[in-house]
Amino acid sequence: MTTQSTVQPTTQMTTDSDRLWASMMEMAKLGATPKGGVNRQALTDLDRQGRDLFIQWCRAEGCSIRIDRVGNIFARRPGSDTQAKAVMMGSHLDSQPTGGKYDGAFGVLAGLEVVRTLNQHDIRTRAPVEIAAWTNEEGCRFAPCMMGSGIFTGELGFDEMMARADHEGVTAGEALDAIGYRGQDDVSPGEIAAYFEPHIEQGPILEETETTIGVVIGALGQKWFDLTLTGLEAHAGPTPMHLRRDAMMGAAEVTHALNRIAHSHAPHGRGTVGYMALHPGSRNVIPGQVKMTLDMRHWESEALEAMSREVAGAVEEISERHGLEWELTPTATFAPEYFDKACVERVRRGAEAMGHSHQEIISGAGHDAIFIGRVAPAAMIFIPCKDGISHNEAESAEPEHVHAGANVLLHAVLDAAGTVEGDA
Amino acid sequence: MTTQSTVQPTTQMTTDSDRLWASMMEMAKLGATPKGGVNRQALTDLDRQGRDLFIQWCRAEGCSIRIDRVGNIFARRPGSDTQAKAVMMGSHLDSQPTGGKYDGAFGVLAGLEVVRTLNQHDIRTRAPVEIAAWTNEEGCRFAPCMMGSGIFTGELGFDEMMARADHEGVTAGEALDAIGYRGQDDVSPGEIAAYFEPHIEQGPILEETETTIGVVIGALGQKWFDLTLTGLEAHAGPTPMHLRRDAMMGAAEVTHALNRIAHSHAPHGRGTVGYMALHPGSRNVIPGQVKMTLDMRHWESEALEAMSREVAGAVEEISERHGLEWELTPTATFAPEYFDKACVERVRRGAEAMGHSHQEIISGAGHDAIFIGRVAPAAMIFIPCKDGISHNEAESAEPEHVHAGANVLLHAVLDAAGTVEGDA
Repeated sequence: MTTQSTVQPTTQMTTDSDRLWASMMEMAKLGATPKGGVNRQALTDLDRQGRDLFIQWCRAEGCSIRIDRVGNIFARRPGSDTQAKAVMMGSHLDSQPTGGKYDGAFGVLAGLEVVRTLNQHDIRTRAPVEIAAWTNEEGCRFAPCMMGSGIFTGELGFDEMMARADHEGVTAGEALDAIGYRGQDDVSPGEIAAYFEPHIEQGPILEETETTIGVVIGALGQKWFDLTLTGLEAHAGPTPMHLRRDAMMGAAEVTHALNRIAHSHAPHGRGTVGYMALHPGSRNVIPGQVKMTLDMRHWESEALEAMSREVAGAVEEISERHGLEWELTPTATFAPEYFDKACVERVRRGAEAMGHSHQEIISGAGHDAIFIGRVAPAAMIFIPCKDGISHNEAESAEPEHVHAGANVLLHAVLDAAGTVEGDA
Repeated sequence: MTTQSTVQPTTQMTTDSDRLWASMMEMAKLGATPKGGVNRQALTDLDRQGRDLFIQWCRAEGCSIRIDRVGNIFARRPGSDTQAKAVMMGSHLDSQPTGGKYDGAFGVLAGLEVVRTLNQHDIRTRAPVEIAAWTNEEGCRFAPCMMGSGIFTGELGFDEMMARADHEGVTAGEALDAIGYRGQDDVSPGEIAAYFEPHIEQGPILEETETTIGVVIGALGQKWFDLTLTGLEAHAGPTPMHLRRDAMMGAAEVTHALNRIAHSHAPHGRGTVGYMALHPGSRNVIPGQVKMTLDMRHWESEALEAMSREVAGAVEEISERHGLEWELTPTATFAPEYFDKACVERVRRGAEAMGHSHQEIISGAGHDAIFIGRVAPAAMIFIPCKDGISHNEAESAEPEHVHAGANVLLHAVLDAAGTVEGDA
């Protein structure tokens, strides 16, 4: 085999844009939708086909394959130091029912492209390099999302998760058995030296600022609530405005208050009402009850707490003014995640080495890297996606951005794994 | 038969409270629900049973029965003047699926009670007195509401209405045939000298002011719109507040604006958002589209037009500010109805004669009387209902108010029909 120096030959090395793109388009055929998207939901036969294809590609590159009890796939390219922990790359292969070609698959196949590039250039790394494909990140067939990485990191209970059923009553455990991906390999978070997850941004910031690489420094904390406002259902005509207890008027003001509060905690505050149900929901009946969700996010725990308090105060004041009863129930809380500084720095250096424009960015959404970051050093690499759209068949990313993301991954991984001089 | 003077004997005459109440409770058994309400929807077999019972009671009082092509029932007690037009009383026997005992049935059975009282006291009227039971006032099984009176007055087309289907695909015409109530009698609006409709208020005003009788001077005009706001569906986390095109934030502000505009047109302005649907309606997705209804009402056409213009202006301003597309479609317009002054005056005199507290009131809801009022002199008599609630199994009215309403009806009818001295 050829001889490589530690630094010089690799600094200008790039992945193969065409090869990566071709693999992504090949993977996207599995579950392809007429509108150009992908429906490859977790633990379906299409998911199995995607996994099979990925494993076939990895074996062709000489990787060893391990599959754990929840179906997470680990494809390893050995390093020179047999005692070294692995530098891991990855994401997920499952999609939303009307998902796109990039969410998840980009991260896994960029990892594969890194391995292919290392093989092509005969690069020997000190630490092993490993690609992870996490089971059921989307959580759309079996809730919750990030199930595979959640079980892997101990954030979610295995038995409880395997008992989760889809709309047909099939459990996650049954579906895992049906596709033949319930593995026996015991992979430990302790084996991970660093974890890098490339992903489309799923937001509009990089596109807005015309930046190629988002150096992800962490993820927003989240607080989710269910709110029920109860007033008095009444005929829309005969009830004068001042005698109403209109739950919808209360709901509108709460929505407006959430918006105002999120804006007042700029730039990191987020406030969203994504779901609202009016009862009875008839054109000429004043709604007697409204059920709605509140989704709040922020980068700082204290600010997230402050937002929650301000919203609760607004709910109380608005309800009192409209004569409504209210019930505000927390349904989920996620603390902000701050990625490992060294990993983040490797991503930044990778972007600089490749000459890509870059900026620090905070993930607003959940990702497998957020769970992995709790048990190992982790960071993420974002690339722009068109109009910030994802979880949508219209999801789209530019080939040059996909290529740039894979190149930054390559250099962050080389930086973390180290390369070895001499015969490989 | 006994001899009656024109005025004296009748001025203190009252209906029989117990008899009326017993008939109402008997009618309420047909379609009685476990929660104390009534489910006797139009053109069902229960509606047939209600009609049969009503006709049986009317025949027992010596009334002649006519049934027109849409199943409207007219029960006539003849007057001394065979050329005189009839003084008509009535309402409807059909109910909402979870309706109450009073909405509709009170008006019809108060009419029956007037006839029974006239018979009991051997009163001969100059004009014939007629009870109408209009088909399908509620419009819940077959839209629209006020179908029978609408066809009777030419406001609605017979063929089009008979083709309207319920959720099972049964047409109104088929259902009418199935219960055997497609009649042949040609009844003309030209036969009506005056029409009086007693009804529960379906609003909270009389209860709030502790008034027994609402002298209804007309009905609010109505303008109904469908509004669609279209923004950009996006992930709730990664999308900063200032880059959102959040359809729900727009919908909340429009709802708030409608509320403000209705209040600014007090006391007669009404604004209601009764229906709202968020797309995709997921907790952590910024709604890309909201479809909602706007219901506006006012007593003056100019004010109703002004409200519509102000709301349209608000929709435009709010949409522009949030980067939304909007489509505002009128779905129904009803001009304000001003009842016949002489009929209204007869109701007022009836309340005064009986010593009941009374106040002028405007109907906010639709009633058969509104259609009849376009082809004949008409007015309505409101009595309080508990908490203003109707279209609800909890609908409730006090026996003394039911009695008071029937007494006012009796005196308004006597006033309009005139009584005859001498042998009947």
